[in-house]
Amino acid sequence: MLESTVAAIRPLDETAMVAARDLQGRLTKPAGSLGALEPLSVRLAGLAGACPPPLPEPAAVAVFAGDHGVYAQGVTPWPQEVTAQMIGNFLAGGAVVNAFARQAGASVTVVDVGVATPLPVDPAASADPAGPVRSVDSAGPRLVAANVRAGTRDMTVTAALTRDEARAAVETGIRVAGELVDGGAGILLTGDMGIGNTTPAATLVAAFTGVDPAEATGRGTGVDDETYQRKVAVVRAALDRHAPDPADPLGVLAAVGGLEHAALAGLILGAAARRVPVLLDGVIAVSGALAAAAFAPDAVGAMVAGHRSAEPGATAALRHLGLDPLIDLGLRLGEGTGALLALPVVTGAVRVLHEVATFDSAGVVEK
Amino acid sequence: MLESTVAAIRPLDETAMVAARDLQGRLTKPAGSLGALEPLSVRLAGLAGACPPPLPEPAAVAVFAGDHGVYAQGVTPWPQEVTAQMIGNFLAGGAVVNAFARQAGASVTVVDVGVATPLPVDPAASADPAGPVRSVDSAGPRLVAANVRAGTRDMTVTAALTRDEARAAVETGIRVAGELVDGGAGILLTGDMGIGNTTPAATLVAAFTGVDPAEATGRGTGVDDETYQRKVAVVRAALDRHAPDPADPLGVLAAVGGLEHAALAGLILGAAARRVPVLLDGVIAVSGALAAAAFAPDAVGAMVAGHRSAEPGATAALRHLGLDPLIDLGLRLGEGTGALLALPVVTGAVRVLHEVATFDSAGVVEK
Repeated sequence: MLESTVAAIRPLDETAMVAARDLQGRLTKPAGSLGALEPLSVRLAGLAGACPPPLPEPAAVAVFAGDHGVYAQGVTPWPQEVTAQMIGNFLAGGAVVNAFARQAGASVTVVDVGVATPLPVDPAASADPAGPVRSVDSAGPRLVAANVRAGTRDMTVTAALTRDEARAAVETGIRVAGELVDGGAGILLTGDMGIGNTTPAATLVAAFTGVDPAEATGRGTGVDDETYQRKVAVVRAALDRHAPDPADPLGVLAAVGGLEHAALAGLILGAAARRVPVLLDGVIAVSGALAAAAFAPDAVGAMVAGHRSAEPGATAALRHLGLDPLIDLGLRLGEGTGALLALPVVTGAVRVLHEVATFDSAGVVEK
Repeated sequence: MLESTVAAIRPLDETAMVAARDLQGRLTKPAGSLGALEPLSVRLAGLAGACPPPLPEPAAVAVFAGDHGVYAQGVTPWPQEVTAQMIGNFLAGGAVVNAFARQAGASVTVVDVGVATPLPVDPAASADPAGPVRSVDSAGPRLVAANVRAGTRDMTVTAALTRDEARAAVETGIRVAGELVDGGAGILLTGDMGIGNTTPAATLVAAFTGVDPAEATGRGTGVDDETYQRKVAVVRAALDRHAPDPADPLGVLAAVGGLEHAALAGLILGAAARRVPVLLDGVIAVSGALAAAAFAPDAVGAMVAGHRSAEPGATAALRHLGLDPLIDLGLRLGEGTGALLALPVVTGAVRVLHEVATFDSAGVVEK
């Protein structure tokens, strides 16, 4: 499935992009006055192969959850069982991702791709592992049980995952993307939950971009100076031990990844293969996006950077991908919250091409 | 009306702000992880005097339109009748502000406060000048006829307005704010239309902040180098001629303002007096906001900076007001478009206080 998905990812359609640029120039506004929204609308036309491209509706957030063996190295002050507890919170609709998704009219699909502790949810609330993910118009968040293993191994001691485990996580992401698009989603948003997951994210960023661990590593959900120094040392130790090859993304994900990072890479590849835009959240998402771009460079054409996370690794990753984020408000929560805040900007950029009058049609004189 | 409105503007409520800060710390997310949204939610609690503050719904955009005597100095390549033509486009629903307002569920009220040329609209489409502005839940944009004079005078030759004309425009803005709030609006958004209106905006910014005309002046809707140099010289000449006193905001507006700038100052004062937030658009809005803050320093508590316009004067004004914008995407269109893009961020910031579970209620362990 991974290989066929990668093979299906193609460049943007130049004809549709030319048409969108031309249309932008005829709308009743000064040329260029919508700033970054204009090239974004052009790119989405190229992705869809149509001008105007479809409005990116409805939106579907996929929140991939996993735990991390590197937790044992003391990289976070949070108890590991918070990952599972927050899944309960997501399914009850009580987290920030739920509030923002309700506001944006987006569905929330929570995917257990590697949680280590028991989920505090009624089994009746969780989907059949073999069943479809929720359609985007059904009510309330839904859980997809797709646990590859109960958390990764400690990457400072051994590879976090086998190649087969990493592949299983990537293919879970591809499957979720396909099912959400089949269910009608016009845009996918990345979400994540995993206590300790900014450490593998920083390691992935350093592995794929070549920046120093000190530049890739941040304070995550809020660590003190001592923990921060330990975190940088852990990232450096993992890179020294595995020397991951950025040309082998499955190898990188296996050595120093997380299951949710791998699944997000798959979600992005799946969206790109279906030519549906994927709106990236924070540092976990962009570390997965680096893996997706290593699998298929043209996948970057489907990516929209939702926001600039406060994590420095996110900025290094966005620079490497050549993406400018839409929102920059110092968020560092994850869950998909930054992507959801940016969604109206993406929709607005496309809506302009659908709804705004031309100078000709409106009887407005040009300069 | 101006004096009583200014007298009604009070500081933020500290008790509500303390309650909002406390609540932010108990919600199921790391403290501070929502970045700029957290202090914004606290400030809106202080404005409302309640925690949580009401959701800022429904939203109402007021687009004030005017023309400018300084047009004669060749500060823009656009024909002056485009101001009136764009009003036709707004009322037909064909402009970018209409597309963004439909997406955000916001009403659009167009106020002719000083257009110089005949409006290309069916008189039946325009409101009784003495009548109320549209209620926020009625369908389609509506025009309020409140023309103070057919464009300002050329400020390089004489004062743009008399003090009485400036006051009439400010009071029009106050009246529109009151009627929109009476109609149920939970937040007001500033919009503007006026060919040439970045020139008085730059002059107001320089007058109120003290920055040099070269720092306050930008390229507006897109002027060439020669026109830009002329524009800076025009701003400098107007300041030299009038030496406006920033402690006398009505005098500044009369000397170098525009009718839409003055009306926006009034809209902001009216919102602040009613303790309803006002979401600022670009450089025209923030130049009006400087006047509002000069009338009533506590009015700043009601202001939310929607975006950072590409116009450099906007950045100088925001710095002077101590406001950080929510969106920074290089927009320079006006009409209220930047404010509308930022609206979901404001709503999301407040929604978190309403809908997100606490650690206690969700059974999630804290660090």
